[in-house]
Amino acid sequence: MEQTYAYSHLRDFTRDVFLAMGCPASQATLASEVLLSADLRGIDSHGVARLSGYVRLWEAGRINATPNIRIVHETPSTAVVDGDGGLGLVVAPFAMQVAIDKAALAGTGWVSVKHSNHFGIAGYHAMKALDRDMIGMAMTNASPLVAPTFGKERMLGTNPIAVAIPANKQPAFVADFATTTAANGKLEILQRKEEAAPTGWIQDKAGNSSTNPHELKEGGALLPLGGDRDHGSHKGYCLGAIVDIFSAVLSGANYGPWAPPFVSFLAPPAHPVGEGLGHFFGAMRVDAFRPAEEFKDHMDNWISRFRATTPVNDDQPVLIPGDPEREMQALRLEKGIPVLLPVVKDLQAVAQKFNLNF
Amino acid sequence: MEQTYAYSHLRDFTRDVFLAMGCPASQATLASEVLLSADLRGIDSHGVARLSGYVRLWEAGRINATPNIRIVHETPSTAVVDGDGGLGLVVAPFAMQVAIDKAALAGTGWVSVKHSNHFGIAGYHAMKALDRDMIGMAMTNASPLVAPTFGKERMLGTNPIAVAIPANKQPAFVADFATTTAANGKLEILQRKEEAAPTGWIQDKAGNSSTNPHELKEGGALLPLGGDRDHGSHKGYCLGAIVDIFSAVLSGANYGPWAPPFVSFLAPPAHPVGEGLGHFFGAMRVDAFRPAEEFKDHMDNWISRFRATTPVNDDQPVLIPGDPEREMQALRLEKGIPVLLPVVKDLQAVAQKFNLNF
Repeated sequence: MEQTYAYSHLRDFTRDVFLAMGCPASQATLASEVLLSADLRGIDSHGVARLSGYVRLWEAGRINATPNIRIVHETPSTAVVDGDGGLGLVVAPFAMQVAIDKAALAGTGWVSVKHSNHFGIAGYHAMKALDRDMIGMAMTNASPLVAPTFGKERMLGTNPIAVAIPANKQPAFVADFATTTAANGKLEILQRKEEAAPTGWIQDKAGNSSTNPHELKEGGALLPLGGDRDHGSHKGYCLGAIVDIFSAVLSGANYGPWAPPFVSFLAPPAHPVGEGLGHFFGAMRVDAFRPAEEFKDHMDNWISRFRATTPVNDDQPVLIPGDPEREMQALRLEKGIPVLLPVVKDLQAVAQKFNLNF
Repeated sequence: MEQTYAYSHLRDFTRDVFLAMGCPASQATLASEVLLSADLRGIDSHGVARLSGYVRLWEAGRINATPNIRIVHETPSTAVVDGDGGLGLVVAPFAMQVAIDKAALAGTGWVSVKHSNHFGIAGYHAMKALDRDMIGMAMTNASPLVAPTFGKERMLGTNPIAVAIPANKQPAFVADFATTTAANGKLEILQRKEEAAPTGWIQDKAGNSSTNPHELKEGGALLPLGGDRDHGSHKGYCLGAIVDIFSAVLSGANYGPWAPPFVSFLAPPAHPVGEGLGHFFGAMRVDAFRPAEEFKDHMDNWISRFRATTPVNDDQPVLIPGDPEREMQALRLEKGIPVLLPVVKDLQAVAQKFNLNF
């Protein structure tokens, strides 16, 4: 069902594909590192499995391989970046660096991005702040798949939020989560296994609760975190909406149901309200609040205390956000990254297209 | 079961109580407006129902009626405010104003607060940014009542997040929600009615799912938004943790299980890790990103489009965050605020204590 590859093999292949698309060398290298960080951290839906999707968007003229990424508006602590239709995988690192540079001077930096594309995993970008003793934040809007509470139309993406907070001796706190009950990647796993989804993940096209993992193909929708009104889905809807507005209304990208789809076989909405997809990044210097060592020592204490929470079951301790992904990364760097056979075939087809080896 | 009072009656009584506690007149007036905004907006658990709680904390020497609220650290876009043990109801407006002033100069302003107390509803503070054409944010940590995913200890408060976003012709987008499946106030309603809670709201002291609305008194815990791991409770746990860290670790307040309890009959933890309770406020000038009118016109479009989402049931349209509270405020300003009889008795006792009329 799957084949295992060394990280460096998948990364170098990905870089070669981006080079073949005409990306400048430094951008192809960066984009491959960003994309592969998903596979390393165990978020398989956002890594090489998406490579052929980027290629198809590029073939459809919806990704610019040589973008002129630039700041189009700024204040001491803010900027708007125009991604010029480039790969989100290179637009996002540019914008996150602007946020970090702003924070170095003004205490914090906040960057909203328009005219971009899918940027990989949000956590990668948020974590860029850590070695500068900054708190990093990243969010993005995405193809509409999610129905707001009481609605049956797909109005929002899975709109993830990542927040990375540095500690001292402890590994950093890294939260990175979709604002839906379950990310689309989890549904794909159930589809492959032909297993039912828990209630609260999806609804059918009439708005009834469903456990059919194929419901999205039949006009259904993902549900906001909370699942239904009784369980707080209006809060998940709020979170997804905030991500949408910060990423796309602040920057001038397409928001809500106008967000362009990632898949090339779906055309973007006919009457766009902005340019491309939007992202939002933040960086806060911790010493803009209190001395960095003092903050990080207290984060160590926060992390140790939460890790020591009395567990419900002795064999399942309370985790700190980022724990599972960090352990997965160590494992996969050592043992390689398992790739599902359909994805392997997909990558082989990409290789053939560009006359590369996979 | 309840008695209805005019807004001005409850507000003036609340002001007189704060005056009787020794608060300066301007602070007593402000604190009463902040507290009553909860009753106006229909969040009855956070309004006058809490007045006697503030009085008891003051009697216990845990609220300073004449605080020296001040900035203790700052950069162009950040500050730390020391609340000096004052009412959160006056500390929070001070800190939010600092955030707004910073934003006016630097594009954004971010203020973390230590040594404070309960600040009323988060939404009140976030909304202060709106008439400056700014996005406002407010969050706070709170008495530990919530178990992290896989845990059975109470480690976090209900830690609310509020985000207020200005529009043009449409009323503003105002999200204000606890990062738990259900706020404690909703549980109190079920307690009074002796009705079972939905699953996913609470667990018993052993960590088992429970529907007993009295479970908190028996050592149980509220659950993070999501309810259980399958439904994304680790995301609610992340959100509550982020609020805790921004509010208390950045500022030097007490975090996690060290957050001081609101009720005076519970002593604060013996070995505090900081001072008092913490809050976090943000203000972002929308014209630090794009022209304000352009942004607000797109917000009008965002709001109209989401309001027009095809509903699951024709009699329940999709709402915009802030809709129910705004309607409630209009109603209660006109018709008065219903107060439950136990709360009326509580307020009468407060009146007697200070030789006031209620």
